[in-house]
Amino acid sequence: MNKEHVSSQFDSNLASIRLKLLEMGGKVELMISKSMKSIVERDSELAEQIVAMDAEVNRLEVEIDEKCLHLLALRQPAARDLRFVTLALKTVVDLERIGDECVNIARRAMELNREPQLKPYIDLPRMAEAAANAVQAALDAFVRQDVQAALAVCRADTPIDELHGQLQRELITFMMEDPTVIQRALSITCISKFLERIADHATNIAEMVVFMVDGVNVRHARPTSQP
Amino acid sequence: MNKEHVSSQFDSNLASIRLKLLEMGGKVELMISKSMKSIVERDSELAEQIVAMDAEVNRLEVEIDEKCLHLLALRQPAARDLRFVTLALKTVVDLERIGDECVNIARRAMELNREPQLKPYIDLPRMAEAAANAVQAALDAFVRQDVQAALAVCRADTPIDELHGQLQRELITFMMEDPTVIQRALSITCISKFLERIADHATNIAEMVVFMVDGVNVRHARPTSQP
Repeated sequence: MNKEHVSSQFDSNLASIRLKLLEMGGKVELMISKSMKSIVERDSELAEQIVAMDAEVNRLEVEIDEKCLHLLALRQPAARDLRFVTLALKTVVDLERIGDECVNIARRAMELNREPQLKPYIDLPRMAEAAANAVQAALDAFVRQDVQAALAVCRADTPIDELHGQLQRELITFMMEDPTVIQRALSITCISKFLERIADHATNIAEMVVFMVDGVNVRHARPTSQP
Repeated sequence: MNKEHVSSQFDSNLASIRLKLLEMGGKVELMISKSMKSIVERDSELAEQIVAMDAEVNRLEVEIDEKCLHLLALRQPAARDLRFVTLALKTVVDLERIGDECVNIARRAMELNREPQLKPYIDLPRMAEAAANAVQAALDAFVRQDVQAALAVCRADTPIDELHGQLQRELITFMMEDPTVIQRALSITCISKFLERIADHATNIAEMVVFMVDGVNVRHARPTSQP
């Protein structure tokens, strides 16, 4: 094999990892929007589909891990490519856990859909949209190695945290006024928390992108997320 | 440099990553037990120390990442060593997030310590101990590459999930009987959830150990954790 051939095969391996990452990202974004739809439209069948989608996301994690290991073992990437592969290994962990959070949301949706609706869902879809956008933007920053875009994802986390805090306070007031709504209010609190965690995962990915591209560590500059 | 020298330097690099991982693991175990002590003994000063400890854990994550990247770039490990290094890169993510969960616990402890105690804390310390043991056992399985020990960690997760579910049901009853306790009961529910997540992180590490040593994927065999 000549050098050029090795190099083009290397590039095609990298491109294949990049494509699989985007595929995995696309799947979890769809899981976020579908899990939210299952709440807003009270569609428990849709909620059940989320669990099946999670299996595909899990499969993609294993597949990407194996591609990365293969590349590290056989092609010994250096410098920027090495950072790309190690970041891919870390990013799939976050993407896989976003899938898990969507399954958690879907389970709570099924519980909520069995009871009368407590209140109109206004903040949750807003949070879900922001969280899905953050995931997409973080992955996009990753594949384009765009530090400015990654930093923008980190900054966008605060409004989602604030929405979560606001919703939580509102639900506590509901519970104090009428103890019969406690169970449902708790389910909504949990869903809000799951969405806030999804945005945190996106921020984790974005912070790692900054580290990978610039070698600057912003990962531990922000405070721990609001519980 | 002769071959033997290169090989011994390689081993010492691997050993150094192993040691740092154990140091990081020891720190997060201490954070778990201290955060629990800050609740049981109502010691908010101790809770404040947790935040400082988290900074050390974050620093260790960056240090281990850099050691791994350095090893991958300069020494090109193969087969089992390569799996060890990639697993180290993933494990520090879980360890760092355990640190974050401890900070979350400490923050809730400070809130709880400002109010009269709602109930004796019996289940929480039990969960904390089980979670800390799981972290220790998972890391131990990792450094010894012991699949049986790793599988035992995965099995130990179920009782912690059950304790969490049981405590959550008990707290809902409390809230329904007396709405004035809602805020405190919610804080305790959150702490229980944080502990359950710590155990999940330990399980994640253990599952990756099985994958690394045996090449068998058990990561996605278990159901998503209880929300």
